Amino acid sequence: MSKSLPKRSEDYSLWYNELVKRADLAENSAVRGCMVIKPYGYAIWEKMQQTLDKMFKDTGHTNAYFPLFVPKSLFEAEETNAEGFAKECAVVTHYRLRANPDKKGSLMADPDSKLEEELIVRPTSEAIIWSTYKNWVQSYRDLPLLINQWANVVRWEMRTRLFLRTAEFLWQEGHTAHASKEEAIAETKQMLEVYATFAEEFLALPVVKGVKTPNERFAGADDTYCIEALMQDGKALQAGTSHFLGQNFAKAFDVKFATKEGGLEHVWGTSWGVSTRLMGALIMAHSDDEGLVLPPKLAPIQVVIVPIYKGQEQLDIVSEKANDLRKKLLAKGISVKYDNADTQSPGWKFAQYELKGVPVRIAIGQRDIQNGTAEVARRDTKEKKVYSLENLENVVADLLDEIQANIYQRAFAFRESHITEVNSYEEFKDVLENKTGFVSAHWDGTPETEERIKEETKATIRCIPLTQVLEDGQCVLTGKPSKGRVLFAKAY
Amino acid sequence: MSKSLPKRSEDYSLWYNELVKRADLAENSAVRGCMVIKPYGYAIWEKMQQTLDKMFKDTGHTNAYFPLFVPKSLFEAEETNAEGFAKECAVVTHYRLRANPDKKGSLMADPDSKLEEELIVRPTSEAIIWSTYKNWVQSYRDLPLLINQWANVVRWEMRTRLFLRTAEFLWQEGHTAHASKEEAIAETKQMLEVYATFAEEFLALPVVKGVKTPNERFAGADDTYCIEALMQDGKALQAGTSHFLGQNFAKAFDVKFATKEGGLEHVWGTSWGVSTRLMGALIMAHSDDEGLVLPPKLAPIQVVIVPIYKGQEQLDIVSEKANDLRKKLLAKGISVKYDNADTQSPGWKFAQYELKGVPVRIAIGQRDIQNGTAEVARRDTKEKKVYSLENLENVVADLLDEIQANIYQRAFAFRESHITEVNSYEEFKDVLENKTGFVSAHWDGTPETEERIKEETKATIRCIPLTQVLEDGQCVLTGKPSKGRVLFAKAY
Repeated sequence: MSKSLPKRSEDYSLWYNELVKRADLAENSAVRGCMVIKPYGYAIWEKMQQTLDKMFKDTGHTNAYFPLFVPKSLFEAEETNAEGFAKECAVVTHYRLRANPDKKGSLMADPDSKLEEELIVRPTSEAIIWSTYKNWVQSYRDLPLLINQWANVVRWEMRTRLFLRTAEFLWQEGHTAHASKEEAIAETKQMLEVYATFAEEFLALPVVKGVKTPNERFAGADDTYCIEALMQDGKALQAGTSHFLGQNFAKAFDVKFATKEGGLEHVWGTSWGVSTRLMGALIMAHSDDEGLVLPPKLAPIQVVIVPIYKGQEQLDIVSEKANDLRKKLLAKGISVKYDNADTQSPGWKFAQYELKGVPVRIAIGQRDIQNGTAEVARRDTKEKKVYSLENLENVVADLLDEIQANIYQRAFAFRESHITEVNSYEEFKDVLENKTGFVSAHWDGTPETEERIKEETKATIRCIPLTQVLEDGQCVLTGKPSKGRVLFAKAY
Repeated sequence: MSKSLPKRSEDYSLWYNELVKRADLAENSAVRGCMVIKPYGYAIWEKMQQTLDKMFKDTGHTNAYFPLFVPKSLFEAEETNAEGFAKECAVVTHYRLRANPDKKGSLMADPDSKLEEELIVRPTSEAIIWSTYKNWVQSYRDLPLLINQWANVVRWEMRTRLFLRTAEFLWQEGHTAHASKEEAIAETKQMLEVYATFAEEFLALPVVKGVKTPNERFAGADDTYCIEALMQDGKALQAGTSHFLGQNFAKAFDVKFATKEGGLEHVWGTSWGVSTRLMGALIMAHSDDEGLVLPPKLAPIQVVIVPIYKGQEQLDIVSEKANDLRKKLLAKGISVKYDNADTQSPGWKFAQYELKGVPVRIAIGQRDIQNGTAEVARRDTKEKKVYSLENLENVVADLLDEIQANIYQRAFAFRESHITEVNSYEEFKDVLENKTGFVSAHWDGTPETEERIKEETKATIRCIPLTQVLEDGQCVLTGKPSKGRVLFAKAY
């Protein structure tokens, strides 16, 4: 708290790292690339989980739990998927430790406990889950299977960043099986909508819904749908994906069903997931140089009340009013903290709750007691206003809604002003370099062009937007014909 | 569904295994010793989680998340703990797969990706958490730290059984740090009370609270408190433990704090956990030869309504009444399913919901419509009674409370009738062999005696009950003096 945060304008990356640590969201651990999610950060993640979990259940899904480990032979079964993840897999080879004869007090993997078959720590669970579905599906009556799991997964990333890219992360992964292609595609799209709604209504994060190019597809999918968000530094962030798996995993794991008509067919699959990466998106989309800015719907503490007083007598009077207000706010379902700790000054507390992104701060002092008022400060705009204590709980409830809407609007305006249509490669590079954000450009549809643009500019095709307008155009790099614009950006 | 369950009286173990599978709670996976928790089983676990999570928060704890992996050097730091778990650790040695040159289409751990330091998949998280606490604790102002995590852990068990003993299991582990020994002990005891309350009020499972002997202590603890329950086959099951860690981990990880008085001292620790093993306890304590018997507070479906009808016209009339009742039950917070599937007969459904342990089944048929009644069947006693549809929602609400209480009472009566005081080794062996249950006996307090009794009878000291009466006696094996009785039993 002693030093102020680095400024976004000076070093966005450093600002992010410092903010995550100082706001007590997460920190690096003793394990390379793995993070510790601290209580305040975890409280936000819990709110995300609860909200999503309800949305999944409301759309007919149930939770289950599948093993952390995937035997190598199962992992290999769907080749595209295996190839896609092989380079970042943690591998368990032994199941016991023993004393190390060469180093007193030290242990080593016991050579006698070498596994016959290595176990992969799941980087994603299609393999283990589809090997299970094989036994769960016999007939069309067993379909659809609509299952989600909340779990940890491990992908051995070389360059890691708290929340954005970590070797272990927490996520949910939905895995569904259907009797028809149409139904599986409808499920894929439905879950994309669930994610988009969640991002916009809870994270206050406007997203572009789209489809990935084959290059950027999930390994093993026929189509990957995604939601793409824009961060304040003009870089994009993939916030969620929903995959239409076709019959790829059904074929790899021999999952067939007896159709109503008496035939025998492979089932159709989907999978979809969001992860603790959303924490990174939340932070980078809204926060400022003073600290976090949390949308009220995800803030662990929505309102903090800080007493301003000299001496115990004043504190007692203020506390009575504060506790009265606290109860009224709680009764309205608002989470509120009354911080009467005498170890810190009000100024220190103000800065602390700004750093933590508490949406509304209420200060009550001696003069307020005389006037029957309180000072209400918004975290998002930093406006302060004095209100009557009477009916303040309703004012605050409305204010929280207003803040939620305002944070979204602000991010939306920023995003809208950072989607630039370009028609030449010069312009393309100029926007990426100077204005940043999404670049809407024609592309000739080949992976080679996509790859070359990526090499030359670091921009990738974030998605082919679902709202893509069909129009004749020329590829921004090759001049070859194109049928519509796609969105490029540098991305996290 | 075609075959009936094995009978408890004939093969308790087989009955348990079959019940877990047929009631769709869990099944074995392709990974040795790891289970798949199926949606119905997971729904029960979710109810346990939600309840416990609230109890933890109400006692001041917050959730966080720590890494899955523990670097070997940290794992070794607390020697007793390391020794205790070394023999059942999954070890990650590589972080990448590559094509296997000797076998086309197959992958192998890439020798170039060998880790400099092996990573242990956490069997429990004291090591990784205390290595983190070192940075979180400087002064008495940072204490107490009251943190819980919901996580998966891996202990490489050789003989596994669904829920009771699996290589991977789900659990919560609380890890707290305190400024004084007294406070840490008070926390240890508080969490034991939380577990006991949870077991008795939600699982409907009477438990004995006690302390473990040094032999049975958690590796690295100064004292292990436990709750011990009795299963219907007369074997005991440890349902939760709460450990007073003394300063063992603080010393191993050098976690010190500046005291109020200006000194520098090691902090005091606790840890406590319950796991998916509770699912096993729940099943084995209450269920019968027809299937699960679930306490209403943990039942995913509390009430099922089954229509009895011939033809669509009758179904329409019954459905109207059933849906009306369904809404009234839902409005009272009761989870209810109306099963109007036309693919199965009412008889099949009755058997199915018995197997699944749904506490209350309501059947509505043509005659009921004429009389304005419904037939209500309790799962626990199998009693059936006809009630007026009017006000039935209140009757059912009361009935659910009654069932919850009855299941507890039944288990309590069984437990009470299976605690036997014995005063000779002959009697001791006889009770263990024939009557089964807890044997309350004098013990000379030595690990040698404890060990010999275990070898000769397979019974272990489950705990020294907190309610132990101090009385002079003679050890049941050696005749040496004893100051009070302890509880022996064969155990899961």
